[in-house]
Amino acid sequence: MPTNRRIVLASRPQTTASTSNFRLEEVPTPSLQPGQILIRNQWLSLDPYMRGRMNDARSYVAPQALNEVMLGATAGKVVESRNRAFVAGDQVVAYAGWQEYGVSDGSGVLKIDPRGGVPLPAYLGAVGMPGVTAWYGLKRIIDPHKGQTVVVSAASGAVGSVVGQLVKTLDARAVGIAGGVEKCRYVIDELGFDACIDYKAQDTPEKLNQALKEAAPNGIDGYFENVGGAMMNAVLPRMNAFGRIALCGLIAGYEGRPIPIDNPAWFLISRLTLQGFIVSEHMDVWHEALKELGALVVAGGIKYRESIAQGLENAPQAFLGMLRGANFGKQLVKLA
Amino acid sequence: MPTNRRIVLASRPQTTASTSNFRLEEVPTPSLQPGQILIRNQWLSLDPYMRGRMNDARSYVAPQALNEVMLGATAGKVVESRNRAFVAGDQVVAYAGWQEYGVSDGSGVLKIDPRGGVPLPAYLGAVGMPGVTAWYGLKRIIDPHKGQTVVVSAASGAVGSVVGQLVKTLDARAVGIAGGVEKCRYVIDELGFDACIDYKAQDTPEKLNQALKEAAPNGIDGYFENVGGAMMNAVLPRMNAFGRIALCGLIAGYEGRPIPIDNPAWFLISRLTLQGFIVSEHMDVWHEALKELGALVVAGGIKYRESIAQGLENAPQAFLGMLRGANFGKQLVKLA
Repeated sequence: MPTNRRIVLASRPQTTASTSNFRLEEVPTPSLQPGQILIRNQWLSLDPYMRGRMNDARSYVAPQALNEVMLGATAGKVVESRNRAFVAGDQVVAYAGWQEYGVSDGSGVLKIDPRGGVPLPAYLGAVGMPGVTAWYGLKRIIDPHKGQTVVVSAASGAVGSVVGQLVKTLDARAVGIAGGVEKCRYVIDELGFDACIDYKAQDTPEKLNQALKEAAPNGIDGYFENVGGAMMNAVLPRMNAFGRIALCGLIAGYEGRPIPIDNPAWFLISRLTLQGFIVSEHMDVWHEALKELGALVVAGGIKYRESIAQGLENAPQAFLGMLRGANFGKQLVKLA
Repeated sequence: MPTNRRIVLASRPQTTASTSNFRLEEVPTPSLQPGQILIRNQWLSLDPYMRGRMNDARSYVAPQALNEVMLGATAGKVVESRNRAFVAGDQVVAYAGWQEYGVSDGSGVLKIDPRGGVPLPAYLGAVGMPGVTAWYGLKRIIDPHKGQTVVVSAASGAVGSVVGQLVKTLDARAVGIAGGVEKCRYVIDELGFDACIDYKAQDTPEKLNQALKEAAPNGIDGYFENVGGAMMNAVLPRMNAFGRIALCGLIAGYEGRPIPIDNPAWFLISRLTLQGFIVSEHMDVWHEALKELGALVVAGGIKYRESIAQGLENAPQAFLGMLRGANFGKQLVKLA
């Protein structure tokens, strides 16, 4: 059996995560038991939720165990199978974690039909968990009417980019928030958003407020929140009556102090609804969502960009960079 | 025509409202035009929302105009009618404001059938706007299942007392929050809540947290928020997954600085839904809600208490006291 390289959680971050929290190990790949498959992971998905799991705190999932392989979604190829549902060569998406090889009994492993035309790593992004997150939050929580305005934070990212493009399929106005001129240009020119606010250029609350006013002149009907913190506080006063806020991430609050919502009176004044959600608890929509997202990707109605780190050993650096917004689009690690 | 005494908004509060913001005036009652009725207001309802209207700020209703009669709900008797739908002697509920007489064209005036057995002032409380607020927030937003736990702030108040008693009709656990031993005893002994937390006795966040833990040992599934502020921050970490928060008031934030939500990450961690609502925007439920509330009041399934100030001239003091929690139950002013 081949040697497996894997990354485990070596220690929990006190505040900001660092590379010292991770450890690269080499271990032998175990022999397969009946019913098992061996997967060569080709792509590893890096996602913000992983940062939350590194803490030993009550959350919607158990914390990542110390000295165990970091959990995460992967795309790869079956190299050996003792399971009748798979043969060597099958392309699969699995939760095989931060390692080069994964052993599975096949449960939770999705077999991909390459004739569908969707590139394999897209199953970790626009046609995977981030895409379905975008789909659920937009369609089931925000549910924008034609002509309404939806604001999306982290708009060039894996989730935000899909949210905005889905908004456009509904004939609503998509306003992105992203960090930097280059990302904003991409969000408008490539992804087709109507406007994009470079939050790095709005260095005072007044400027941010003015930028939101210009980008959303008719107010904000839906807010898709990936980030939390200062952005939420800027958006709330500009929400229209009966606005909906879908909350699926709080990167800004994962490290260090929580960022308060300064003035909750807006929820009452504008009769807003805020809903936190975790897409893995809404498996009933996955089939419908993935079908629509796959079709849109193949037809060019959903574009996306990937930041690709090369080799497992570079996963920690890429992950920490993503938490700072250093990535541009979906953050992946190419493992083979 | 009789002389009318009325209270107008003399000035807007800078921070805390005071009696100097109000002015008592005596004016002649106008002669009725065809279609109009003259109402002798017997009861004036004092409600926290009035404080919000005293500010000149964007909100869900226009601000109260300066030098105009303070708006508010009233119960009284028609003393003269040039409207075929009313005769002298009719008992009515109207929005006639802080004054002894009101002139109306009849629109928005509800004629009461005294044979129903509901006392007239109850139409300003348990069988009026506060009651329907309780009904809507509990049934349409929190929607508790049997055995779940609902926490209600301002539990001895006009809204909170109805929320808890409705919770009990659904075989769920009702936990009140109120200020003082006497109010808490009333909430448990008279209203039938399962537990009540005296927030004045919990003078540290740790004590408040411990009290919530004891009163809601299985966590909190629904929170009916009348108050805002410290209470919201104490409740959030104890909410169960998929908990619902109905937000209809923020007394704690009406004056002075807004009170932040310290850690919005709980909305994500526990996948909570927070919904702000104004009951007057849900007129479609009023008929159903009032029917149920009226029947419960007559049958004794909903009890309530009233704080009654005597005479219009005492309305400002009673109103300011209510904002501080000095009232016990629904705050009314007896005008005749």
